[in-house]
Amino acid sequence: MYKRGLFLGRFQPIHNGHLQVIKSLLKMVEELIIVIGSAQYSHSFNNPFTSGERILMIRNALIENNIDISKLYIIPINDTNDNRIWVSHIIASTPKFDVVFTNNKLVFRLMKEFGIEVKNTELFNREKLSSTTVRTRILNNENWEELIPKSVSSIIKEIDGINRIREIGFSNLKK
Amino acid sequence: MYKRGLFLGRFQPIHNGHLQVIKSLLKMVEELIIVIGSAQYSHSFNNPFTSGERILMIRNALIENNIDISKLYIIPINDTNDNRIWVSHIIASTPKFDVVFTNNKLVFRLMKEFGIEVKNTELFNREKLSSTTVRTRILNNENWEELIPKSVSSIIKEIDGINRIREIGFSNLKK
Amino acid sequence: MYKRGLFLGRFQPIHNGHLQVIKSLLKMVEELIIVIGSAQYSHSFNNPFTSGERILMIRNALIENNIDISKLYIIPINDTNDNRIWVSHIIASTPKFDVVFTNNKLVFRLMKEFGIEVKNTELFNREKLSSTTVRTRILNNENWEELIPKSVSSIIKEIDGINRIREIGFSNLKK
Amino acid sequence: MYKRGLFLGRFQPIHNGHLQVIKSLLKMVEELIIVIGSAQYSHSFNNPFTSGERILMIRNALIENNIDISKLYIIPINDTNDNRIWVSHIIASTPKFDVVFTNNKLVFRLMKEFGIEVKNTELFNREKLSSTTVRTRILNNENWEELIPKSVSSIIKEIDGINRIREIGFSNLKK
Amino acid sequence: MYKRGLFLGRFQPIHNGHLQVIKSLLKMVEELIIVIGSAQYSHSFNNPFTSGERILMIRNALIENNIDISKLYIIPINDTNDNRIWVSHIIASTPKFDVVFTNNKLVFRLMKEFGIEVKNTELFNREKLSSTTVRTRILNNENWEELIPKSVSSIIKEIDGINRIREIGFSNLKK
Amino acid sequence: MYKRGLFLGRFQPIHNGHLQVIKSLLKMVEELIIVIGSAQYSHSFNNPFTSGERILMIRNALIENNIDISKLYIIPINDTNDNRIWVSHIIASTPKFDVVFTNNKLVFRLMKEFGIEVKNTELFNREKLSSTTVRTRILNNENWEELIPKSVSSIIKEIDGINRIREIGFSNLKK
Repeated sequence: MYKRGLFLGRFQPIHNGHLQVIKSLLKMVEELIIVIGSAQYSHSFNNPFTSGERILMIRNALIENNIDISKLYIIPINDTNDNRIWVSHIIASTPKFDVVFTNNKLVFRLMKEFGIEVKNTELFNREKLSSTTVRTRILNNENWEELIPKSVSSIIKEIDGINRIREIGFSNLKK
Repeated sequence: MYKRGLFLGRFQPIHNGHLQVIKSLLKMVEELIIVIGSAQYSHSFNNPFTSGERILMIRNALIENNIDISKLYIIPINDTNDNRIWVSHIIASTPKFDVVFTNNKLVFRLMKEFGIEVKNTELFNREKLSSTTVRTRILNNENWEELIPKSVSSIIKEIDGINRIREIGFSNLKK
Repeated sequence: MYKRGLFLGRFQPIHNGHLQVIKSLLKMVEELIIVIGSAQYSHSFNNPFTSGERILMIRNALIENNIDISKLYIIPINDTNDNRIWVSHIIASTPKFDVVFTNNKLVFRLMKEFGIEVKNTELFNREKLSSTTVRTRILNNENWEELIPKSVSSIIKEIDGINRIREIGFSNLKK
Repeated sequence: MYKRGLFLGRFQPIHNGHLQVIKSLLKMVEELIIVIGSAQYSHSFNNPFTSGERILMIRNALIENNIDISKLYIIPINDTNDNRIWVSHIIASTPKFDVVFTNNKLVFRLMKEFGIEVKNTELFNREKLSSTTVRTRILNNENWEELIPKSVSSIIKEIDGINRIREIGFSNLKK
Repeated sequence: MYKRGLFLGRFQPIHNGHLQVIKSLLKMVEELIIVIGSAQYSHSFNNPFTSGERILMIRNALIENNIDISKLYIIPINDTNDNRIWVSHIIASTPKFDVVFTNNKLVFRLMKEFGIEVKNTELFNREKLSSTTVRTRILNNENWEELIPKSVSSIIKEIDGINRIREIGFSNLKK
Repeated sequence: MYKRGLFLGRFQPIHNGHLQVIKSLLKMVEELIIVIGSAQYSHSFNNPFTSGERILMIRNALIENNIDISKLYIIPINDTNDNRIWVSHIIASTPKFDVVFTNNKLVFRLMKEFGIEVKNTELFNREKLSSTTVRTRILNNENWEELIPKSVSSIIKEIDGINRIREIGFSNLKK
């Protein structure tokens, strides 16, 4: 049992696979820090939602899934574009943690070089359950709601997120 | 009753006055966003603690005071050094809010110009209860613990915060 | 009739299509703000010219076309790489405007979300009249001068712009 | 007679002394570039107005004074906080110039070291005519309107600038 | 004979071709400045090594090749992402130089526009001897050590550089 | 005996006290890294010289003092304005070191918190031998040359440094 673990993602948006991972991690840690990466980006196909919107989605998804949010921290962190200082940036932005969970190869390597314990997470139906799939289905008007919690699809509709993704589409004038 | 309010501070560190304000605000809003400003600064006399340390202090202080944290968001936000875009930065980094509470004149003005409802907060024993007083007492080896929750003074001791403040002192080589 | 409209482009370089748009917009607004976007970039194939050079080109093109420049503002604006604060950045950098003209989908969406009136512009012979076509023809030694005002081709020659584009070519070591 | 001169200021706000300088410079140059420095700052006592507001003030002040704006460029430029590259930043942001007019010692030195011709400007009643005096009088509710063109005081009132300066006052939480 | 020349590269890592160029340049200059470009990047396939690691590799490679390091300066310089001020950035970061050696088309053009003498370097077996080839061979487990000095392959092994490149691979989540 | 030590300063300019410290440190380490801090600042009273000029001064001062430069690294490093990541920034920018020498309280604290061994340096006639004293004497036309190596005063004269300091003086428009 770890005292405090750290789980990173961009959560664009949070989907059912994320929730299964979080549930399984909560069996291994007393407290879990959920880091929302690339917090400064929004309004692009890869990062449609602001960090404020993502905080709300994650929170409501956790509550909908009866996850005890008093054991969780939700912390947005900007990309640094400088890998050399990225781990320090994470450490200074979060309460002290003793393990990191990630399937991102770069994050894995950076944490390991820093001397931090790092583990892969289980993958739940990865080929289907990914944020990219959710966004692509929104773009193509396919069934995207089955992949995410109801509370998250509510927020996406409320903030006019479907039109946001469709109007911007793959336009990548700005990141 | 407001749906969601926003309360800003640097929380260097959170003290009993902050907690009284938060309690009184929770009577006026359904949910409260606590924004930790100047999140990127630390290790100076004005900003001794990292944003990660401040998140932990605030969280534990709320729990110690039996405040229901499921109604609260704790969100760190960096200074922009560009007042022109600061309000947008706050809006994008937080769930939608309908009122801001602050006694900072600049924040008050910027929010008002943007068309956001903004209110002063009550001051509880302001001349004594301020983060500056806490830090100054730590520096001068006076009774600082009476001004802050027990859980916060625990964290300060655990992270060797007393020595951090005393060793750095008023050295202002770096902000 | 709008009091003040805003028209955005990178103007790398300004071409005859831009001028037709500006002329048609001037029938709809009392004053027009021409924003030179991506102002900080230069010396790449996509952005060969500095913002100073582009200001001069636009100014001379307007005068050559007998457009009354006392009704126009030419304002360079850097990209922010943070869509969340981009509209605020535009607002703070320009005199107050009441309508935006753009065919860029992202700009359109960002303005609309902010509550600003935004309209598409007419396209004049778009497949031929574009800055990309001008630059590609310069690279390939084809007839590029027919696409832009004489005063602009003069400036390009004077600043050795043809060789600049050809020597840099598609090299994209730096943006 | 110089072909194109460059005159720098922060214009917070433009006052009658600036206008006298501009008139006298226009006798020495064919075209004049007015650079609005520290463009990114606003909402502080030293820099109350945004660059967009300052552009509008300068433009209207010039027209009120019957200065031919077709001979003038008004170009906002952000501070770089890195003196080493500041001159290059100015050069890239403006049409080519052959002389700089300034009484700022640092700007004078930087331009001279770069090999650019640089001259002091005449001072017109400097002890009284300065932007600092204008702002201080606004703060103290003294006669500030006599120091600036009517069109500028109109804009200041229209954008609620008097209250902006008084409410922010000397608060310098943010630059 | 030039007094002081400047040679730019990213040196990811330094290879035998670089060393041949340096030796040949040392016949043309009294002193040589080796600029390590893109200094801020590391832990990506294109830029696996930090600037600190690259400084050490270059230094040891020079000593292994009996090059007199008292005639050399090794200076790391960050990318600016703003070509307009890049040459000034180089000038301010290095002792005065009178010639630049480069085969990079953009660097060549920027230096020439600034009025600096710039020359191509000889290419030694370019199709085989490149840093990209070294990194690709490391990735593919082919013979990479023959392309670089022994002291450099020692450092790469010591810092676990082979695994760093293989684990990160072509993942380009971050630059 | 340490393998590699790190010594930090701004070296505005390097003076005889610095050289005594370096000589004494070289008895304790096999190799010494001299970090030039605040590398991005220049042309102010506190930071008159560019990092390129400071590299040249340090190098020539070392040679004049018969110090073996093959045991030394001279590495310029920009301030980060974010203490949280500053140590990582230093580590990534330098070859691996096992001890830091500094009398700066903040640097001392930051290194210690990171788990790095850190020691104070001896002070040689500190009240007289400081860079601030050198600059103040230049400003006041007092004997400044006795405080620094001859090779350094040569460079200062060659780059017109005396006039640079006097003309800028205490003007602090820009840092």
